[in-house]
Amino acid sequence: MQRLLTPVKHILQLTRVMQEASLTPARLLPAAHQTFSTASAVPLAKTDTWPKDVGILALEVYFPAQYVDQTDLEKYNNVEAGKYTVGLGQTRMGFCSVQEDINSLCLTVVQRLMERIQLPWDSVGRLEVGTETIIDKSKAVKTVLMELFQDSGNTDIEGIDTTNACYGGTASLFNAANWMESSSWDGLRGTHMENVYDFYKPNLASEYPVVDGKLSIQCYLRALDRCYTSYRKKIQNQWKQAGSDQPFTLDDLQYMIFHTPFCKMVQKSLARLMFNDFLSASSDTQTSLYKGLEAFRGLKLEDTYTNKDLDKALLKASQDMFDKKTKASLYLSTHNGNMYTSSLYGCLASLLSHHSAQELAGSRIGAFSYGSGLAASFFSFRVSQDASPGSPLDKLVSSTSDLPKRLASRKCMSPEEFTEIMNQREQFYHKANFSPPGDTNSLFPGTWYLERVDELHRRKYARRPI
Amino acid sequence: MQRLLTPVKHILQLTRVMQEASLTPARLLPAAHQTFSTASAVPLAKTDTWPKDVGILALEVYFPAQYVDQTDLEKYNNVEAGKYTVGLGQTRMGFCSVQEDINSLCLTVVQRLMERIQLPWDSVGRLEVGTETIIDKSKAVKTVLMELFQDSGNTDIEGIDTTNACYGGTASLFNAANWMESSSWDGLRGTHMENVYDFYKPNLASEYPVVDGKLSIQCYLRALDRCYTSYRKKIQNQWKQAGSDQPFTLDDLQYMIFHTPFCKMVQKSLARLMFNDFLSASSDTQTSLYKGLEAFRGLKLEDTYTNKDLDKALLKASQDMFDKKTKASLYLSTHNGNMYTSSLYGCLASLLSHHSAQELAGSRIGAFSYGSGLAASFFSFRVSQDASPGSPLDKLVSSTSDLPKRLASRKCMSPEEFTEIMNQREQFYHKANFSPPGDTNSLFPGTWYLERVDELHRRKYARRPI
Repeated sequence: MQRLLTPVKHILQLTRVMQEASLTPARLLPAAHQTFSTASAVPLAKTDTWPKDVGILALEVYFPAQYVDQTDLEKYNNVEAGKYTVGLGQTRMGFCSVQEDINSLCLTVVQRLMERIQLPWDSVGRLEVGTETIIDKSKAVKTVLMELFQDSGNTDIEGIDTTNACYGGTASLFNAANWMESSSWDGLRGTHMENVYDFYKPNLASEYPVVDGKLSIQCYLRALDRCYTSYRKKIQNQWKQAGSDQPFTLDDLQYMIFHTPFCKMVQKSLARLMFNDFLSASSDTQTSLYKGLEAFRGLKLEDTYTNKDLDKALLKASQDMFDKKTKASLYLSTHNGNMYTSSLYGCLASLLSHHSAQELAGSRIGAFSYGSGLAASFFSFRVSQDASPGSPLDKLVSSTSDLPKRLASRKCMSPEEFTEIMNQREQFYHKANFSPPGDTNSLFPGTWYLERVDELHRRKYARRPI
Repeated sequence: MQRLLTPVKHILQLTRVMQEASLTPARLLPAAHQTFSTASAVPLAKTDTWPKDVGILALEVYFPAQYVDQTDLEKYNNVEAGKYTVGLGQTRMGFCSVQEDINSLCLTVVQRLMERIQLPWDSVGRLEVGTETIIDKSKAVKTVLMELFQDSGNTDIEGIDTTNACYGGTASLFNAANWMESSSWDGLRGTHMENVYDFYKPNLASEYPVVDGKLSIQCYLRALDRCYTSYRKKIQNQWKQAGSDQPFTLDDLQYMIFHTPFCKMVQKSLARLMFNDFLSASSDTQTSLYKGLEAFRGLKLEDTYTNKDLDKALLKASQDMFDKKTKASLYLSTHNGNMYTSSLYGCLASLLSHHSAQELAGSRIGAFSYGSGLAASFFSFRVSQDASPGSPLDKLVSSTSDLPKRLASRKCMSPEEFTEIMNQREQFYHKANFSPPGDTNSLFPGTWYLERVDELHRRKYARRPI
């Protein structure tokens, strides 16, 4: 529906079960400054406008190789003749066997599309899946599709799964079109996605995941390496274009926050970033700036995920940096535990609550987001310069100042009570026709709570008065 | 992290369980031409550039009002002292009781944020939820949050749920930022979302939904009315700004496609759009253009969802239009059944397969997407003018020409075989440690299939050779 300008970066959009349609808009735009997530100070290029026509350049439709005739089915089901064929206007119905699922359907349609239009696998910059078929509550279909890109080495592909009944396809199309029009199209984000089973939720009847803890830590660190490498490469390219040929290091970030499964992981991760800087540094810089790491020269990132000597040396070498750039961000995690999807943003709130607007003004905050399965991005926030009273920054920082007070106002429960409540959660998980037990006065004022799940699983909520 | 220019439209981003962080970037941009989804021909305004700083203006953090001390838990769990407090770096852990779930957490954090920063409910243009907590496989958390906006009458709020383990928060932040930078920010889309239980999947252990068929049809038609009204209002405003004070009607769309649960629903929907046009028309136009509808003057949209006389008259009045603008789009649905998330795009492919590039060139295709729960949008595609051999349009249209041949090459299965295969799907749904039965030669060449699910639910796929 639109001119193909140049197939530099493409977008794929997938939809769901039984049949599939995929869309491939493309646009050409020179590498541009990413205002949202950049740590650089390169001015906006003159090309920072919307591309003229963003749209669908290719479609791929897949349907199963078998169908049942609807006249036959009317007879078999003993319904009046014409119920399906006239009443629904349907003559045949395709259906999948047990050999196919949402992952296989999407694998098929993506590969068919790529082969047909001969699009190089390393030219795709975004791939998003719209589906209402969930076979894992945590691991996105998108991560499975990354298998197809493996040989090309392209893992920097944004976009993930989007869901709401039959609307997911349209939501992902809109997201894809917005991405094409935005500065993110070739912006300053390092993304790494791949297909692994480190933490996932295949048992839909349980609230709990399947976890391979050791694998997950290794995946997290590998994704961190990959994302940071990609981010550094992109920002250095931008600097080069602006005439400055310097390496990017952690010194260019005043703060660094991480997805926090547990606090120790974050300290290890900052140390890991320092190791990345160390390996990229010149021999002289290695000697002068990275005391205690001399023994680890010449190692490769991918060989060092379980090197305990290196870990120890890195933790020591990065301790000061950790105290200065990252420690404050762990405040909520320390006092509240793993916050999962909101973890990184809990770290951001913690950081803001521990610094003044004046301290933060003008700084750059590096951010690493990780979701098992896996999808990860390294990006950064630039804090505005204006820290004057009443400024947006001042207001934002002030709003986080009550975190310690709010945390202190919580009620301490005994391990016995905690266990009892966890058992209740298991007992009521996916139950219908019940009202949750418990005193709503134990909630903070202004908290919404589940009042009732009726016999048809419809959920009703009420709010505790402020 | 950014100046608040003017709080005209805002964006909320939510994350997940236990604690919540929400983000509110905002930008100011005059109503702009939406290149992707417009049916108008208003030229691009000079303001069609990225806003200068898109970012986070407000954060809201929620955590449960109860925690368990980690030293206590170490003793209770009989693990070595320091395992949680030193090993994980965690002193306290918050947890939710059975009274709270992902919906209640998100309700709380959105309402708290809106109240605290005193943002009018009708000023929000996008709200997206990033979560890894699925309590319904189909109905998005976002639809539940629409309850909060009910009194304001604001249902035109884009964005839906985004998932992949802990990455969903970051994916939704990126999507939100892209939206802010794109022309969609105040583009030509009519969206309607609300909290209803018309079709949903609360039983996670089953592949099948809970459906209230009658309610779902009414919701679909109501959403269609609302989206079309909103779309028409926006496009007419743009036309007015360009100096043309004319009403938008179906005549301005050469084709019209719909999400298709079943084909008859679509014919009824096109008729419904004509009724919208009829009610908005002047008395003279009503008489001259809409034969047979005179008796229905002065009715209100919301009173006519079950008016059978009206339905009959509308179907008759719109039959020619249906044959011309919509019928071809039902080709795949007729021969393959409900395609769910990909339905609308299957209609697009069908339409392309039934018209030549020359016929399509320069046309506008209206599109209505519906997902139960509910989320719906009315938008449009503009087909490029160039239909010459080898043009992108020519290639796209050609690529769909093999649909009839491909559909005809499917194998017809008996109702007995169909039933047997459906039973197999139930039997193997969420089973671990199995290889799906069946002959992979029954799949189309080049189809991916599920080869094995191992004892840890890890899924392995293979491809049938081309």
